[in-house]
Amino acid sequence: MTETGASVTGEPDASGRGPYAKGVARRRQIIESAIAEFAERGVDGTSLRTLGEAIGVSHATLRHYFASRDELLVEVYRAHEERDPADSPSDRGAVEVMTASADINRAIPGLVRLYATLTTDALQEDHPASREFIRERFRAVREDLARRIRDGQASGRIASDIDATDAAALVIAASDGLQVQWLLDPDEVDVRRALTLLERLLPGSAG
Amino acid sequence: MTETGASVTGEPDASGRGPYAKGVARRRQIIESAIAEFAERGVDGTSLRTLGEAIGVSHATLRHYFASRDELLVEVYRAHEERDPADSPSDRGAVEVMTASADINRAIPGLVRLYATLTTDALQEDHPASREFIRERFRAVREDLARRIRDGQASGRIASDIDATDAAALVIAASDGLQVQWLLDPDEVDVRRALTLLERLLPGSAG
Repeated sequence: MTETGASVTGEPDASGRGPYAKGVARRRQIIESAIAEFAERGVDGTSLRTLGEAIGVSHATLRHYFASRDELLVEVYRAHEERDPADSPSDRGAVEVMTASADINRAIPGLVRLYATLTTDALQEDHPASREFIRERFRAVREDLARRIRDGQASGRIASDIDATDAAALVIAASDGLQVQWLLDPDEVDVRRALTLLERLLPGSAG
Repeated sequence: MTETGASVTGEPDASGRGPYAKGVARRRQIIESAIAEFAERGVDGTSLRTLGEAIGVSHATLRHYFASRDELLVEVYRAHEERDPADSPSDRGAVEVMTASADINRAIPGLVRLYATLTTDALQEDHPASREFIRERFRAVREDLARRIRDGQASGRIASDIDATDAAALVIAASDGLQVQWLLDPDEVDVRRALTLLERLLPGSAG
């Protein structure tokens, strides 16, 4: 999963050319190590300093690459999403896309916790980087799902009088909220089954 | 709304009898002040010390009444829920109950932020008080909503082959997740409209 390796104390990727490429490789290594760390241990109370200790990078080095703890958390989550994109061909339904994504997340609860931390930080004052990232992410996912729902309406699979944006927000909310309940109570909450129920319900009166 | 008053620097409620009653009244005053503080300013980075400064109570006094920051946050949220219970007669539908609760929350975004903080804390290590409270709260709400859904099935309003517990988890998730999206993007996300859509969908093939 981590082609660049878990150790970030060695030299930058040998394929890097010149100082800029080295910096990019080094930054990438730090992010990969942070992903591994968060996946295993979660993100609670993580400051740049404690994270640096955990992954064996000096605080000064971390500060060189990331302006703040929030920026590092955002970059880690972004890298995770880019590396493990939910497999979502454009003709796949909205709920199906979120179910596939939730399936991936279930194997890496630390990343679900990181996402919850980013989202909660985004709601508070004084976390502009998290707020910007999470708000834009929600907007982009709502837009993508709304398009899929409109496609479903065009093909007659979903009732035409359902507001696609409301439905998109609802599907994201269901997926996010179910993952939180599942993390707290894995024997009581089945994310996939509950999302499958939503998929059955979503057609509305069509279908 | 706060009968005990916002100031906690004065004497305990005169109706208290003896030191125990005084202690209870004082604890209650602190909680009420904290609710007011959170409703206005949110909970970000709140330690017992900074909260004490904000509401004019010494750190020693707070430590006397609350073992930890988490215990105070839990008690504040519990008091908020007891004071402003969503009006939920037992024959009200599951989605309706969550919609009523979300309507109340919309007026006090600071408390929605507090709830998000408690929930995210609950997912991390080292927050046993938050974890216990939030897990039990989810269990209780799922049980209550599942009962309402089974009632709906008994009366033919909801398809009988829907799993009531899955549906209950789904309704809670939708409500929680929509409130998060709304806090981040109030012009783009309409909690009430999206929950009304869920209410329309939930009957499944019955209705």
